[in-house]
Amino acid sequence: MPVTIYEPAKLRPGTLRIIPIGGLGEIGRNMASFEIDGKILIVDCGVLFPEEHQPGVDLILPDFSPIRDRLDDIVGVVLTHGHEDHIGAVPYLLRLRADIPLIGSTLTLALIEAKLKEHRITPYTLTVAEGQKEKLGPFDLEFVAVNHSIPDALAVAIKTVAGTVLHTGDFKMDQLPLDNRITDLRAFARLGEAGVDLFMSDSTNADVPGFTPNERDIGPVLETLIAKAPRRVIVASFSSHIHRVQQVLDAAHANGRKVVLMGRSMVRNMGIAADLGYLKVPEGVLLDAKKAVNLPDDKLVYMSTGSQGEPMAVLSRMANQEHQISIGKGDTIILASSLIPGNENGVYRMINGLMKLGANVVHKGNARIHVSGHASAGELLYCYNILRPKNVLPVHGEQRHLVANAALAVQSGVPEENTIIAEDGTVIDLKDGYASVVGQLDLGFVYVDGSSVGEITDADLKDRRILAEEGFVSIFVAVDKQTGRVIVGPEIQARGFAEDGAVFDAVLPQVIKALEDAAANGTRDTHAFQQVIRRTVGRWVNTQHRRKPMIVPVVIEA
Amino acid sequence: MPVTIYEPAKLRPGTLRIIPIGGLGEIGRNMASFEIDGKILIVDCGVLFPEEHQPGVDLILPDFSPIRDRLDDIVGVVLTHGHEDHIGAVPYLLRLRADIPLIGSTLTLALIEAKLKEHRITPYTLTVAEGQKEKLGPFDLEFVAVNHSIPDALAVAIKTVAGTVLHTGDFKMDQLPLDNRITDLRAFARLGEAGVDLFMSDSTNADVPGFTPNERDIGPVLETLIAKAPRRVIVASFSSHIHRVQQVLDAAHANGRKVVLMGRSMVRNMGIAADLGYLKVPEGVLLDAKKAVNLPDDKLVYMSTGSQGEPMAVLSRMANQEHQISIGKGDTIILASSLIPGNENGVYRMINGLMKLGANVVHKGNARIHVSGHASAGELLYCYNILRPKNVLPVHGEQRHLVANAALAVQSGVPEENTIIAEDGTVIDLKDGYASVVGQLDLGFVYVDGSSVGEITDADLKDRRILAEEGFVSIFVAVDKQTGRVIVGPEIQARGFAEDGAVFDAVLPQVIKALEDAAANGTRDTHAFQQVIRRTVGRWVNTQHRRKPMIVPVVIEA
Repeated sequence: MPVTIYEPAKLRPGTLRIIPIGGLGEIGRNMASFEIDGKILIVDCGVLFPEEHQPGVDLILPDFSPIRDRLDDIVGVVLTHGHEDHIGAVPYLLRLRADIPLIGSTLTLALIEAKLKEHRITPYTLTVAEGQKEKLGPFDLEFVAVNHSIPDALAVAIKTVAGTVLHTGDFKMDQLPLDNRITDLRAFARLGEAGVDLFMSDSTNADVPGFTPNERDIGPVLETLIAKAPRRVIVASFSSHIHRVQQVLDAAHANGRKVVLMGRSMVRNMGIAADLGYLKVPEGVLLDAKKAVNLPDDKLVYMSTGSQGEPMAVLSRMANQEHQISIGKGDTIILASSLIPGNENGVYRMINGLMKLGANVVHKGNARIHVSGHASAGELLYCYNILRPKNVLPVHGEQRHLVANAALAVQSGVPEENTIIAEDGTVIDLKDGYASVVGQLDLGFVYVDGSSVGEITDADLKDRRILAEEGFVSIFVAVDKQTGRVIVGPEIQARGFAEDGAVFDAVLPQVIKALEDAAANGTRDTHAFQQVIRRTVGRWVNTQHRRKPMIVPVVIEA
Repeated sequence: MPVTIYEPAKLRPGTLRIIPIGGLGEIGRNMASFEIDGKILIVDCGVLFPEEHQPGVDLILPDFSPIRDRLDDIVGVVLTHGHEDHIGAVPYLLRLRADIPLIGSTLTLALIEAKLKEHRITPYTLTVAEGQKEKLGPFDLEFVAVNHSIPDALAVAIKTVAGTVLHTGDFKMDQLPLDNRITDLRAFARLGEAGVDLFMSDSTNADVPGFTPNERDIGPVLETLIAKAPRRVIVASFSSHIHRVQQVLDAAHANGRKVVLMGRSMVRNMGIAADLGYLKVPEGVLLDAKKAVNLPDDKLVYMSTGSQGEPMAVLSRMANQEHQISIGKGDTIILASSLIPGNENGVYRMINGLMKLGANVVHKGNARIHVSGHASAGELLYCYNILRPKNVLPVHGEQRHLVANAALAVQSGVPEENTIIAEDGTVIDLKDGYASVVGQLDLGFVYVDGSSVGEITDADLKDRRILAEEGFVSIFVAVDKQTGRVIVGPEIQARGFAEDGAVFDAVLPQVIKALEDAAANGTRDTHAFQQVIRRTVGRWVNTQHRRKPMIVPVVIEA
């Protein structure tokens, strides 16, 4: 994409500099930095999940380079809520400086602390709640309740001498949420009255017309499905969706069924949620997996993860008959979740597999068993009208979402020149009610792959895609250092290409001849021999097989 | 999936044997064989497009093994319409026997003939039209007009002494199609009155409630979009969707714009369609690409392919600024097509790219500019009620579609035991109004990859996925045949793993040591040395890097 990179001018005292570090141009790895008078505040630090053109990548982190040399200036990281795309990169940030304070709600901090425990990090934390104000260096923070698909989410108002920013985090405006904790429009109104200079708002659903339906609407559907189910019910959802699980527990309880929680993250998160009072477990409804075998099938509900068709998760393993629970006729599977773009093939494969085993599969395509966690266009308009922000910076979304969100701002009366469609690394300065783009940093994707962080490059991923699509041919040869004559080999190995390398025997004489010719012409250089092999084999494979595998020549001078 | 393979009993005279060869359990590679009294009729012979877990595969063919040894018994191939998933595998079938007659409508045959020309095959053809009857050996065929997203589609009634089968091909029931050629329910009624023993019907949209909207609804939307567009308009759709292109031509013409057709298949197909009268080109509306530079932007509409985000197609190249048409502010891009599952990430990447360049992108997510080509549940119910078939075999769909279609049949009164949910290779015998499953053949996926057909196996694809996700490490060594001592190497190459192989230097001493130990213990066998290398390097990479690359040891005894 055509981004012009340019360094911003040095930040002047009294000006607030905002850099979206991640989450613009993508759904995930949300992170933004705010700097004024030498101090930096971070909002969120999440991960992005890889797409199919990033094979083998486990996670994608924000590029920390804008703050890497400024770690000691960071006064804290505000975590708006406990989803992976907002907290997942915290362990990697704390590896750089372990004592950066984390600021968030009770549930958010409990979830990040559990995650950090796995990384053997004990963080410094500051628990905050809606309505609470905190001063961190030059930043006066006020936390505002917002409703989302995880409890205890917060927006944060960041007040500085340069002006006031309101950052929503992720939110929607369910008017009848399960916990009655609504997005606090009274606070939005009060902040709007006082003047919001920059509004950074969740764009995820900005291109969805109308209003996001209520979470509460799902309960009756779940209850009917469970009541009608002749045998086992297996519900799959996200392991952080405490209110969804709450509704499953309630629906199971109402139907005299027991619930077995399955999957490590589901068990862990619901344990935390129950301990802290976010999940209200009806007396005796939860059952240990081992005891489930003693109950008849029509008294059981399994609550699992794996709704996205993840191959290693419980549900996919059931579909592939690789799980101890063997699915059969009469079983009801409920995918009470979204279908994240890119996962369609995997999810449908799983659905088809479950149906072949005889299960009835209910999903959002055939029943109202999921609602989104994000505000749709209608709700965003409410926000713009109640806040009347001076400037708008849509965050959390791909280009299409950011553009749609900005269009809503303009429709509600924000001047078009005061809406900023930014990218990761765009540098925005705020001063006296003016927000302007003053630079563009060159930020990349930081890939986590096994134990390596940031070592895999886009070139490596391109190699991987070539390997996947074309396979490779490796040719080994040892040549005499003096004469250039082949003394061992050539030996050819190929993978991902055909059943074996026998097909390549035909090219061996050509390789030997080409090497001999090169040696006769005075070539003694390993690199030149490699080029000869690459050219000879590449041309032959392309002509004979219409394929372009990766060609890996290995020449040893002996 | 748990399919029990068993051979059917020998086919008795007077019994009709039906084998769905492709298209059941997948959307694509549709093909079915019908055999009675020693003669075989084929209906359709299409391709399936690969998913992301089949990297490098160009096409997937039906497994011809049920008919491979019976080629001379084939009386003909009925092609219901000209889509790739119904005709794309014909060249591969005709490679086995070039003179198998192809039977289809004028447009269908024109499209397959154009395709066969590229394969340098001139087929034997029999052109048929709706209402026409033909006798091919023991098969009395009657062709029935059906409406679909390509003109001139046909259903086929296959009458034999064993009973009557009605095969819909792909269809929907648009009641106001552009060419006024509706699905002929009068013929359905007449066939139903006479008795349909087996109904094979398109399941693609069986799980979509209600009715598929009319193609005609799209015209006004296109016209409004083109009228409002300040600069160029680029419409992308499928190159076979003649009625969609017709509506674009008409809308452009109504707005005084010229249309430039782009992309080889678009130009070719519209040429055929115009020549045969299926596309009615308003006088002077088409413009050669070279002349377009002379017209102002607001007088131009480009009609292209690439709506699925295919990287090499015109539209993706525009999004990546790799096309001579450079997209900018004011340009309108209209994706007048479906979004095929699995293509989401690629399509959204393209949309985001186009939007970053300043274009307004209209797609089915934000405007009614596409309708499906397949009958929804409501339309299928009409079919069941008007036909009242004795037996039902849902075709064309994944398990979820087949199950949904069978459920509609049952709702309309077909006994559940008379609906057959089959798979590719299920053998169904029809006799005296009874249809029963009598066998299950073991059919596989036949992958086309470059010039290779059927050589790539699922094991090769698994190799490719491992290469993509984990890369490979290749270790070369030459050992002395007598002593087992390393005389050349070890030399390590790695790809897709880290920037270079330098990271592996640390394992070399271990490899040498392991080989020496093995040699000291008497190992002289190449295979055993390879195992030693594989184990040593594998363990080291797993421990040090938490990765499991493919390990390719090459041992030469010299």
